[in-house]
Amino acid sequence: MKVLYPNTLELDTAALAGFPTVTLHRYDARAPTLPDDLLDAEVLITWANSAANLSFAAQHLPRLRWIQSLAAGPNDVLAAGFDVARVRVTTGSGLHDRTVAEHALGLLLNAARRFFEMRDCQLRGEWPGHLGGPQPDRAPGTFRTLRDARVLVWGFGNIGRCLAPLLQALGATVRGVARRPGVRAGVEVFGEEALPALLPETDALVMILPGDASTRHALGRERLALLPKHAWVVNVGRGSSVDEDALYEALVKGEIGGAALDVFEQEPLPAGNKLYTAPNLILSPHAAGGRPQGAEALIVDNLRRFLAGQELRNVI
Amino acid sequence: MKVLYPNTLELDTAALAGFPTVTLHRYDARAPTLPDDLLDAEVLITWANSAANLSFAAQHLPRLRWIQSLAAGPNDVLAAGFDVARVRVTTGSGLHDRTVAEHALGLLLNAARRFFEMRDCQLRGEWPGHLGGPQPDRAPGTFRTLRDARVLVWGFGNIGRCLAPLLQALGATVRGVARRPGVRAGVEVFGEEALPALLPETDALVMILPGDASTRHALGRERLALLPKHAWVVNVGRGSSVDEDALYEALVKGEIGGAALDVFEQEPLPAGNKLYTAPNLILSPHAAGGRPQGAEALIVDNLRRFLAGQELRNVI
Repeated sequence: MKVLYPNTLELDTAALAGFPTVTLHRYDARAPTLPDDLLDAEVLITWANSAANLSFAAQHLPRLRWIQSLAAGPNDVLAAGFDVARVRVTTGSGLHDRTVAEHALGLLLNAARRFFEMRDCQLRGEWPGHLGGPQPDRAPGTFRTLRDARVLVWGFGNIGRCLAPLLQALGATVRGVARRPGVRAGVEVFGEEALPALLPETDALVMILPGDASTRHALGRERLALLPKHAWVVNVGRGSSVDEDALYEALVKGEIGGAALDVFEQEPLPAGNKLYTAPNLILSPHAAGGRPQGAEALIVDNLRRFLAGQELRNVI
Repeated sequence: MKVLYPNTLELDTAALAGFPTVTLHRYDARAPTLPDDLLDAEVLITWANSAANLSFAAQHLPRLRWIQSLAAGPNDVLAAGFDVARVRVTTGSGLHDRTVAEHALGLLLNAARRFFEMRDCQLRGEWPGHLGGPQPDRAPGTFRTLRDARVLVWGFGNIGRCLAPLLQALGATVRGVARRPGVRAGVEVFGEEALPALLPETDALVMILPGDASTRHALGRERLALLPKHAWVVNVGRGSSVDEDALYEALVKGEIGGAALDVFEQEPLPAGNKLYTAPNLILSPHAAGGRPQGAEALIVDNLRRFLAGQELRNVI
């Protein structure tokens, strides 16, 4: 059974060995085609493939039965035209938790400590004195520290579980929102119907929603209006979950404290887009994840399950 | 017994009550003088006083026996000309641990995630695509994440104790350097004689040294040369501990990865100073601390000790 793995990251193939019926074949994930001798592959591992490559694979791998994407949200695979009745798709959910959590924490601290504003001053050759020296400690109606800050994680899943203890260690109070409410990793997670009550009590809203039709513009004008004037929005999920026009308006009118966005409705954000110059907007170029960690262990577990005819992990 | 407390921060005076022989008097810490009816004070609490105010106090409080500064390093009090044979000085050590640790963590993430460089692109209206998308995970010879990063905290005291578990939670390996070696809060702390061995094994050097003659230019040309080319220097201690000329040279020559400085030899950093435009330099305007937390508990404990004739905490 041929398993194709991509050349777009360093996989430790020794850690994938031990399945006698499996042969591993490296392929060029950026190439527009696949070589003839790989077209009888049954398993395809994808990471940062070109759209042409996936489109070719969708049409030229008749024996394909399973795609293991290493992306948390494999929108590229889903858009490539694979026959989903025949081909199962599993995601790289869990491989990006730590790196996305680290980035989200960094964006929160960038916002609270106003590093972006310090940078603006530095580039003008000015000392940002108004941001240093003696300051009030945790003044009400501000977001200047994570200590005692109320952080709401919307889309509380694996990344949220990883992020919450980091925020708590800095003194923040963390709550979550998800489709299924409950208590996860000690954090109270509410259903979306609780948002009208939760948003007004939020100093920083961290969005980690997937990008599908159900989350489109989840954060729009109405919900933005429920946030306190000093609240920050951090989005490390998918750009489509935020109504960028409504966000821009809230920023320009000073109705929220700011926004740190790692994802956008269109990426790269087109030149001339108004978000480049929106006040209190921190732009990050989809850099939170992009570094799958522990991919081999997931692949091996799913390969074993696949060969045993068991249910796969991270089925989409 | 008159205790003077400053108007430069909000103290909860109710939490200082309960000492029958003590009267509390608020004073203007920015004024060049003190009112006549306060000149018989025996205790002076200081925070962000003007130099003139401290100089006046040094000359016009004949009964003064104790100064409780709320600064971690009360260089201002020490430079004001108080008669140290008669007046004890205690510091605000411990009141700034959490806020300085948070800032140091923020600077480390700013460096690793290159938020400063993203900002430069954003201000030019450019998408910083080279900093996003698929990236190698923890490539050797880089500092792009705290996970598995080797962080050395030089001046490992209370702030280091507070910072270390935050870094460890993100996956960093933390070691310390201090005058007295040993194991503190589970972190191995070495003497300064170990620096030649430690610096080459460091991805990020966090400096939290006090500002006195013994630490002047502790990080100079020779020690900078021992750091790997990708290593970052973060200074949240005192500016005098870094030889800025040597640091600038190392930055320009690309001999280190970068520097995030919250403190400088001269503050504000004078207009036109070359550090404003040094490559890979993140400038922060002495903003790490500046927010004493829990001052009342320290004051009460020391007031009780003072009245009981016991040894004070944080004696300089």
